[in-house]
Amino acid sequence: MSTDKKITLLGLGAMGTALARTWLAAGYELTVWNRTASRAEPLAAEGAAVAASAAEAVAASPVVVACLLDDASVGEALADAGLAGKDLVNITTGTPAQARARSDWATARGARYLDGGIMAVPPMIGVPEAGAYVFYSGSEALFEERRDALAVPAAARYVGGDAGSAALHDVALLSAMMGMFGGISHAFALMRGTGVPPKETAALLVEWLTAMAGYANGMAAQLESGDYTLGVTSNLAMMVEGNATLLRTAEEQGVSAELLTPYMGLMERLLADGRGAESAAGVVDLLRKG
Amino acid sequence: MSTDKKITLLGLGAMGTALARTWLAAGYELTVWNRTASRAEPLAAEGAAVAASAAEAVAASPVVVACLLDDASVGEALADAGLAGKDLVNITTGTPAQARARSDWATARGARYLDGGIMAVPPMIGVPEAGAYVFYSGSEALFEERRDALAVPAAARYVGGDAGSAALHDVALLSAMMGMFGGISHAFALMRGTGVPPKETAALLVEWLTAMAGYANGMAAQLESGDYTLGVTSNLAMMVEGNATLLRTAEEQGVSAELLTPYMGLMERLLADGRGAESAAGVVDLLRKG
Ligand SMILES: NC(=O)c1ccc[n+]([C@@H]2O[C@H](COP(=O)([O-])OP(=O)(O)OC[C@H]3O[C@@H](n4cnc5c(N)ncnc54)[C@H](OP(=O)(O)O)[C@@H]3O)[C@@H](O)[C@H]2O)c1
Ligand SMILES: NC(=O)c1ccc[n+]([C@@H]2O[C@H](COP(=O)([O-])OP(=O)(O)OC[C@H]3O[C@@H](n4cnc5c(N)ncnc54)[C@H](OP(=O)(O)O)[C@@H]3O)[C@@H](O)[C@H]2O)c1
Repeated sequence: MSTDKKITLLGLGAMGTALARTWLAAGYELTVWNRTASRAEPLAAEGAAVAASAAEAVAASPVVVACLLDDASVGEALADAGLAGKDLVNITTGTPAQARARSDWATARGARYLDGGIMAVPPMIGVPEAGAYVFYSGSEALFEERRDALAVPAAARYVGGDAGSAALHDVALLSAMMGMFGGISHAFALMRGTGVPPKETAALLVEWLTAMAGYANGMAAQLESGDYTLGVTSNLAMMVEGNATLLRTAEEQGVSAELLTPYMGLMERLLADGRGAESAAGVVDLLRKG
Repeated sequence: MSTDKKITLLGLGAMGTALARTWLAAGYELTVWNRTASRAEPLAAEGAAVAASAAEAVAASPVVVACLLDDASVGEALADAGLAGKDLVNITTGTPAQARARSDWATARGARYLDGGIMAVPPMIGVPEAGAYVFYSGSEALFEERRDALAVPAAARYVGGDAGSAALHDVALLSAMMGMFGGISHAFALMRGTGVPPKETAALLVEWLTAMAGYANGMAAQLESGDYTLGVTSNLAMMVEGNATLLRTAEEQGVSAELLTPYMGLMERLLADGRGAESAAGVVDLLRKG
């Protein structure tokens, strides 16, 4: 087997295990290592070579993928591994600054470095129709040369030479999702005790939020132009008026509005600033500190 | 023309005007009234009969649609109109309690009452492919008999005999949307100043949020069963861990996390309660007061 089909994976948690299976299924010569050795056993039975140490695992392949708990665990696991000449692909979740520091650290040890942010949960890995993908950033040469291997578990999207870019993209999308989940939670709380089955509410929410997600496109056009009245159909004055109905309804239904009030508060600040004819895009400026 | 094709519309704001045009285009004999008379002029030119008072407008048709600013303006406008025998369809935004009170008020005056919540902005009205619709609740007989007329501007969805139900559905979806918009704003704030064009960020957000909206279905299944571990792929322990990365990244990027922290705080309360293996569905319970 050519060295091109050799790959090492550090970390066999829920995500690492899912990744490992896709490389085995695709005919890669996979070497695995996990701090708790017992987690490697099922994969050994499926054809993976199990290394006794992270250093031994790193030595086995030109490409080393790390999928560990956090950035600190990457530093610990690789403390005495020989990284010179290796391609280190770190898809452990972290912040942009952690990714940049880890890139410098790996580069200083003679490795090429690519950082990754996985936009998926383990059941979506190796299931192309699930739409999972991984943001990658850092060494473009590494990305291009190892693209085939990287694309095995999930689609690979390169987002730039700044090693922190993948993490930033990852966190931006997860943050938006947290906002949406908060909104969904509030909606379910409002509908509780009305006799409407949660599944009916969910079907309405999915349809509505899917339709309204496109709001991001309009907001992007406004942010790019700097003209926050561009194509506005619901301006701030109208939205703030509507917010009063949302708050009053929460009150009527005995639901805390704590998940909505911060955003509404920022809209009110813009309105008080005389920006009632604009969209809510100005909230983005208010969120930037200093 | 049969009385079936006679309809009266009170209120010619942005929304009322859009509605009016669809009934005219569909061949309805439309009578309109607006407090500020000049706003009726363009519609008069398009074939609408303009009434000199709300009472006169109400007298002109068996079906009266009110699309005014708020519930108080409906009470004012209809104060001395003869409602006996009329079908009053109130699609003015309000709270569930306002809708119920307005229903009692109209019923006491001898009218049948249907309340509505419009899930659209004016440019979506009369454009079937835009997916706009109106939630209706209250008199089912009225809804069934007037269904054809009601379905002209946008699809009509009946959600029950409780007059407050349409408003509650409306507010629930709008509330979820506000959560999503807050999340989107945070994401744009994180990505600002990175050189990534907002339109690229928007495309990623739309794709991601569309894919993740289905979370509501899983949450509904959990809420219905009462088992919040049902089908969980990312449990609370893992999400709270991830939240730390989200907060740290916001800090690194100089972005206030105020739109995310309330939801994260509720997740932490659940985790502290020993519910780390569950999904975040328990947040819905925490939001219900008392
Ligand atoms: N699961 C998801 O839904 C998901 C989604 C997107 C991204 N991710 C990311 O993928 C990465 C792995 O997640 P996972 O779900 O596989 O987590 P997991 O199931 O909790 O596994 C954590 C892994 O990290 C190892 N580890 C922890 N501390 C270590 C240390 N100090 N030294 C060496 N190894 C250490 C663990 O080894 P032991 O077995 O010895 O404990 C285990 O292999 C995380 O960064 C996560 O954020 C996960
Ligand atoms: N526009 C949207 O995106 C949208 C979306 C969904 C639902 N809605 C709902 O649709 C309704 C109408 O919205 P809109 O966009 O058409 O609002 P708008 O453009 O601000 O128009 C408000 C209308 O209400 C009238 N009005 C206000 N106070 C009144 C009073 N005391 N007595 C009689 N008439 C009064 C105004 O008359 P004058 O011309 O005399 O001021 C005008 O016709 C609202 O409940 C709104 O929440 C709107």
